[in-house]
Amino acid sequence: MGATVNTTGSTQIIEASPLTRAGFAEYGDVIETDGARHFAINAGRATRFDDLASVDTAEASGLPAISIFRSVPVPHPVVLSVMERHPWASQAIIPMNGAACLIVVAPAGPFDATRIRAFLAGSGQGVNYRRGVWHHPLLALHHIGDFLVVDRKGEGENCDVVDLDPTLRITVMLPDAAIG
Amino acid sequence: MGATVNTTGSTQIIEASPLTRAGFAEYGDVIETDGARHFAINAGRATRFDDLASVDTAEASGLPAISIFRSVPVPHPVVLSVMERHPWASQAIIPMNGAACLIVVAPAGPFDATRIRAFLAGSGQGVNYRRGVWHHPLLALHHIGDFLVVDRKGEGENCDVVDLDPTLRITVMLPDAAIG
Repeated sequence: MGATVNTTGSTQIIEASPLTRAGFAEYGDVIETDGARHFAINAGRATRFDDLASVDTAEASGLPAISIFRSVPVPHPVVLSVMERHPWASQAIIPMNGAACLIVVAPAGPFDATRIRAFLAGSGQGVNYRRGVWHHPLLALHHIGDFLVVDRKGEGENCDVVDLDPTLRITVMLPDAAIG
Repeated sequence: MGATVNTTGSTQIIEASPLTRAGFAEYGDVIETDGARHFAINAGRATRFDDLASVDTAEASGLPAISIFRSVPVPHPVVLSVMERHPWASQAIIPMNGAACLIVVAPAGPFDATRIRAFLAGSGQGVNYRRGVWHHPLLALHHIGDFLVVDRKGEGENCDVVDLDPTLRITVMLPDAAIG
């Protein structure tokens, strides 16, 4: 399940998989309407796809924050440089204008570069990284993209960063159809 | 400031104003990049427009919830039928695919139909209703729209509703440029 990691000489190639709830379950929530619990609201004029993510921001009196990230697109193939985690909170990222993006994660706990996985989020798909899950900073594809972010504000240092060994050239390959 | 209310016979006509932070300040936050505090993140590849809304969901052990509302568009002119408020929490609504929508509010406190105001939210503009602010259920314009919603989950009855007197025919007029 999820993407394949191959190590070829000094280059680690990761193939991006389509983003699905089952594939992403180890890392957090997929925020999308497909397959979500839903019900009619507003006298039948709207549908509520309900409670799609576990927002976890209350540690040490933290509060949820809503922000917008505007990101330039990343060139293909994507060579990874850094991974980060938020030890005190979840972080949700949802495209605002249908922008596609690449989601790159590794399990919570001690960072292990051989366990990096990549997922291709389509239009209308967001994610919510569970607290402590390693992830690459936002990787927009094709166009400048605006993303709504729900994370934590409050005291404390809520970001750990690991620089990836540049000699490894850890590289994500997109499916042909996703190369803009 | 804000829209004008005219009462003509038994019809109350409300002209929708463009959505701005200054005009909406009495009701909550405008979630948009224009004019927002921002700084570079991700080694300069992205900009964070930071902390755009006051999420207020902790009353009675409530938790923030992330949902998606999918709404059919409303016909023009818009005749209002009902207003609601969430006495225990804020509610943020942000378009996911650039959909325009109409925001209709009245001040917190005892409901007063003569104080209803309407704002036209453009592509890329969301709002966060402050706790207790009266608002009309989602009014998407032109197309079926998906909207990301950040509100509250937890115990308690967090929605009060008032049915508007149908003989009043409280009607919102859009600017000509916004009539699809």
